[in-house]
Amino acid sequence: MKVHIGPVAPPELTAAVVAAGAEIGPAAEASALVWYGGGPERFAELDHPGLEWVQLPSAGIETWVTAGALRDGITFTSAAGTYAQTVAEHTLGLMLAGARQLHAVSRADHWARPAGIRSLTGATVGIIGAGGIGRALMELLRPFGVRVLAVNHSGKPVDGAAWTCSADDASGVRRALAESDFVVVAAPATAETAKLIDADALSLMKSDAWLVNVARGSLVDTDALVAALDAESIGGAALDVADPEPLPAGHPLFQHPRAIISPHSANPKSLLIPALARRVEDNVRRRLAGESLLGVVDLTAGY
Amino acid sequence: MKVHIGPVAPPELTAAVVAAGAEIGPAAEASALVWYGGGPERFAELDHPGLEWVQLPSAGIETWVTAGALRDGITFTSAAGTYAQTVAEHTLGLMLAGARQLHAVSRADHWARPAGIRSLTGATVGIIGAGGIGRALMELLRPFGVRVLAVNHSGKPVDGAAWTCSADDASGVRRALAESDFVVVAAPATAETAKLIDADALSLMKSDAWLVNVARGSLVDTDALVAALDAESIGGAALDVADPEPLPAGHPLFQHPRAIISPHSANPKSLLIPALARRVEDNVRRRLAGESLLGVVDLTAGY
Repeated sequence: MKVHIGPVAPPELTAAVVAAGAEIGPAAEASALVWYGGGPERFAELDHPGLEWVQLPSAGIETWVTAGALRDGITFTSAAGTYAQTVAEHTLGLMLAGARQLHAVSRADHWARPAGIRSLTGATVGIIGAGGIGRALMELLRPFGVRVLAVNHSGKPVDGAAWTCSADDASGVRRALAESDFVVVAAPATAETAKLIDADALSLMKSDAWLVNVARGSLVDTDALVAALDAESIGGAALDVADPEPLPAGHPLFQHPRAIISPHSANPKSLLIPALARRVEDNVRRRLAGESLLGVVDLTAGY
Repeated sequence: MKVHIGPVAPPELTAAVVAAGAEIGPAAEASALVWYGGGPERFAELDHPGLEWVQLPSAGIETWVTAGALRDGITFTSAAGTYAQTVAEHTLGLMLAGARQLHAVSRADHWARPAGIRSLTGATVGIIGAGGIGRALMELLRPFGVRVLAVNHSGKPVDGAAWTCSADDASGVRRALAESDFVVVAAPATAETAKLIDADALSLMKSDAWLVNVARGSLVDTDALVAALDAESIGGAALDVADPEPLPAGHPLFQHPRAIISPHSANPKSLLIPALARRVEDNVRRRLAGESLLGVVDLTAGY
């Protein structure tokens, strides 16, 4: 099997393909493509009739869906699950920073204890979109003795959660929002999840609850969020993603007393490349052995 | 048994004494005193010849040692261990905030990924003073697959640590400093631990390592730390305690690109009172039952 890596080929990915036992080749001769370093609008440059499998570098692939680039006849795999641990780690960091008001003290020029300090230990954590990141987060939360309310696509009970409901169960979702001290958004960006956290959803949250979004900016209505923060109707928001993204300089969320904005840095390149390399090596091995691939994209579901 | 609570008596502590089955009484009639709301210089106001046991409200009692207030004939108990979980939670928050550069993004007014983002997962964590807080922290760190290097008083192996050495073992301590990605200081403040982290200790640390102090400010040489941060010879410092404390307004550590200063807020009053109430209830019950008390101060060791 010949594999092409492009439009950009980091040496770690080349090493992963070789370690798995495949050969690196030019795009036109490769039945497999490891995509890195460009958006879906450039896919046509490397696509060709002999292409059978494309490994995409991100967990969320909604830009490929929107661009209509996921053509029939090719198996696309996302990197879903690959970055779960590093994103979960970042998520816990955002939760604790919010709980402990570390954004406020980071901005201070004098010694003064901020208001609103709380504990994560024993808290109720709602996870909206309890997939790979949610499960990894639950592992990290285990020593805190939290109660997890999980919302997922199927409604199938999530191991370790106190309670699970389907995203289609509107009253269940409202309950998760209303009872949680921390609402973590980790669902894929689809037409169904656009502005899932709107003014109505925010109005259900506790007045000291924190919203943490590590999914995609489109899931949260930014203007409604700013209004809720200004009205102090929720405790705070910690966002690794935003809408629009990037947030324009000087946006009210930057340095907001109740907000922490990390610029899509849950999975920076320094952590992404080694994790992606492991997934590439694993999937190339599986392909060579005729086994099923990890992260196969469901074209109907859109993720 | 009559118990007095003072100089200030929060209702939660009164309730704890009553729940344990003891009676609240005036200081002069009480054989037990739950101290709250004042420094050791006020101890004489409530001391009397019939006093047998004093429950102090903090884990570190070095101000009582220094003031010479721990007189013979009284059993003093500290709150050591009581706040371990909340302080460990804060410590993990500081570690993750440093690793994920959350102090830097909190200060930003635009969308830009900061340098220096790293992961806690799989890192090496040195715990200088692996007592109650250290053990609680190790529980929280377990899902991160870290390697813990523990330094304690006895050198007796700490459960779950990859390696333990005694604080008296200078080469062992140097090894812990040199190999750790995060150096957590959680030792009691004594004459031996004063300026334990000085210019020499800092010079041993990795250039990307973070120092986290949740013990007492006296354990770290502040000027040496500022010099190390300015020289970028360590990755950063996250301090919940400082020397002097409070740090004066405008001190170079405030808003330093490599520093996070939380103003002794690991255990704020809102979290302290319920935890102290549990300890008071437990110790009053033990006293009434003739059992040994928790947190008995060793006058020789000074903690």
